[in-house]
Amino acid sequence: MPDSADERLRITYALTCAAGEDPRAKARDIALEQTVELPPGSVPADVAERIVGNVEKLEDLGGSRWKAVLSYDVGVVGDDIPQLLNLLFGNISLKSGILATEIGWPKALLAHFPGPRFGIEGLRAACAVVERRPLLCAALKPMGLSAERLADICYQFAMGGVDIIKDDHSLANQKTAPFRDRVERCQQAVAKANALTRGHSLYLPNLMGSASGIGKRLEFVRAAECRGILLSPFLVGLDTVRWIAETSELFILSHPSLAGAFFHPTHGIAPDVLLGEIFRVIGSDGVIYPNVGGRFAFSEATCVAINSSLRSPLGRLRPAFPVPGGGVDAAQVPHWIDRFGIDTIFLVGSSLYAQSDLTEASRGLLEAVRRHCDGRSVKSR
Amino acid sequence: MPDSADERLRITYALTCAAGEDPRAKARDIALEQTVELPPGSVPADVAERIVGNVEKLEDLGGSRWKAVLSYDVGVVGDDIPQLLNLLFGNISLKSGILATEIGWPKALLAHFPGPRFGIEGLRAACAVVERRPLLCAALKPMGLSAERLADICYQFAMGGVDIIKDDHSLANQKTAPFRDRVERCQQAVAKANALTRGHSLYLPNLMGSASGIGKRLEFVRAAECRGILLSPFLVGLDTVRWIAETSELFILSHPSLAGAFFHPTHGIAPDVLLGEIFRVIGSDGVIYPNVGGRFAFSEATCVAINSSLRSPLGRLRPAFPVPGGGVDAAQVPHWIDRFGIDTIFLVGSSLYAQSDLTEASRGLLEAVRRHCDGRSVKSR
Repeated sequence: MPDSADERLRITYALTCAAGEDPRAKARDIALEQTVELPPGSVPADVAERIVGNVEKLEDLGGSRWKAVLSYDVGVVGDDIPQLLNLLFGNISLKSGILATEIGWPKALLAHFPGPRFGIEGLRAACAVVERRPLLCAALKPMGLSAERLADICYQFAMGGVDIIKDDHSLANQKTAPFRDRVERCQQAVAKANALTRGHSLYLPNLMGSASGIGKRLEFVRAAECRGILLSPFLVGLDTVRWIAETSELFILSHPSLAGAFFHPTHGIAPDVLLGEIFRVIGSDGVIYPNVGGRFAFSEATCVAINSSLRSPLGRLRPAFPVPGGGVDAAQVPHWIDRFGIDTIFLVGSSLYAQSDLTEASRGLLEAVRRHCDGRSVKSR
Repeated sequence: MPDSADERLRITYALTCAAGEDPRAKARDIALEQTVELPPGSVPADVAERIVGNVEKLEDLGGSRWKAVLSYDVGVVGDDIPQLLNLLFGNISLKSGILATEIGWPKALLAHFPGPRFGIEGLRAACAVVERRPLLCAALKPMGLSAERLADICYQFAMGGVDIIKDDHSLANQKTAPFRDRVERCQQAVAKANALTRGHSLYLPNLMGSASGIGKRLEFVRAAECRGILLSPFLVGLDTVRWIAETSELFILSHPSLAGAFFHPTHGIAPDVLLGEIFRVIGSDGVIYPNVGGRFAFSEATCVAINSSLRSPLGRLRPAFPVPGGGVDAAQVPHWIDRFGIDTIFLVGSSLYAQSDLTEASRGLLEAVRRHCDGRSVKSR
């Protein structure tokens, strides 16, 4: 067991070699490309020793695929999420046949990143869900409705007992429902419903905008007494999410918009690494991903791997909620509880909207979930 | 000719259909997925009319490939770069066989984005290059050297007349050369060389970090009298680049780190759209891309298309410099001048470092470029 100060950052890649491509040379090229960006002859010996990655392992997976484990001094990353991404896949994104499949996180690196401020336990407490059941989330849509109409939908969901009502991630600052107007009205609508039901539904507005704009919007959201927000890390910047997680005391639900570009089967970053680990490390309390069988293409194995990454021990980081969505049918939620466990937030959209009464639809779903979980030995995860 | 207020945002996709997939249904699905995220039956008629995209054209390209032109009301974007990216490729990144190949920019949308503050003309003026020649850029590396040694390299490049000396994009805030120490020493070294040569070399430090951190680093960079910076839009956030371009009065050179994830041939965003248009719209004065024949995989046609996108008329936006790099051999620069024209910045790295005297190597390159351009009818672009 090495001293933790000497522990190296290990990144595993699945390499797919083109005809005539040597896997050892390909692995060595990654080690240079991601650090010094120079041929070996131009790198001073002391730098080569400390900075260039080591190819620790190379294993033939058959069919021109190889598993390569590279290790780096943690000092290469410093304390920076952008530089971590840079090292993981920055320049090699422009090459081909390189899939990041695993990260071995040294304690010294994780020490820079506190991760989710609340995590599964904190979010359960905020929604006052002490019973053994998953949380339910509904998306506020469609874009194009006025803030008033959106607030009315919030009210109906909250009256039906939906735990978390989040803006659709496309709700930005369009004229049809400008950000401030929308946030105020929706938050008030949910508060009004909570007062009537003695419930604890949360409204999470979507934050877009730049480094400066997002700061102002954060202040506004807090002043409006929202307790959490929706962020798309690849739209607002991953380190912006980290900064908000560390400083804002708001729950963060992360959305995978644009992230699909990384999910090519032979080149990119595996979904369980990107959505399950990176999104958790930057501080997401819950991570939305497209469930199997919905409108997108993830397999059940991928979903299970993401769930596991979000909940498994990782240094001192709190576990985060998986939030399968993207076409989860309300009628299928009990099935998915059995597959994914109760430490899950189910994001249900279209199949609620397809029913005429949103409150009744939500209430029916919540009751079905309770009946399914009640007294049964449903697995936690 | 429609009134400009009615002009719609047009996005062209190349669709690759799987067996049995209907191209019209696939195009229609994009229009719904990227806006309302609901099946048609659940969208109120007024919203469907104003918000859901129209499939304006569908053309068989053969081999299961189709060209689809979708149009959207500009109000769908609002004034937001993140929402523009969201609309272009957000959720559909999680699907497959969808490549964004062209954007038709309405004036009403471009009006929100001033683009490059300086552009080709401004950057030429700052480097005092009035002669008809391309600019030369060198990368400061490798990571792992002390700030003092990096500053010495800056000095050597500046003494050799390199126009722009930029941090390697992996230089973050590592302990070997912490950000502030590095920026101060490197800027001083370049200023000292400029005083001796009466030259105008610029040093551009790399800015990483979060929404809050980047603001402090910007202040520091300005106080150190740097005139420009290097940014990786996908590491710091694209809207962060826009914000800096609008407010900082610094030249911005953009780096494609991570962007390669979008360059899959049948799914993603075409390089000339992403690096040539989006990176220009967010305010890059120059955009680095991997040149053909270097360490990466772009074709010459791709490079020419990026060059064209960066320099072609686009509303009121200034043209930006293409910056081919990633393995440009100093000896080949005259060849690339003939191919790409003089309104180009050539980023030369390894082939300078391979020579023992960086000042002599730089001087030799600059002289070769001058000889090649002098008195000859080299094309501008």
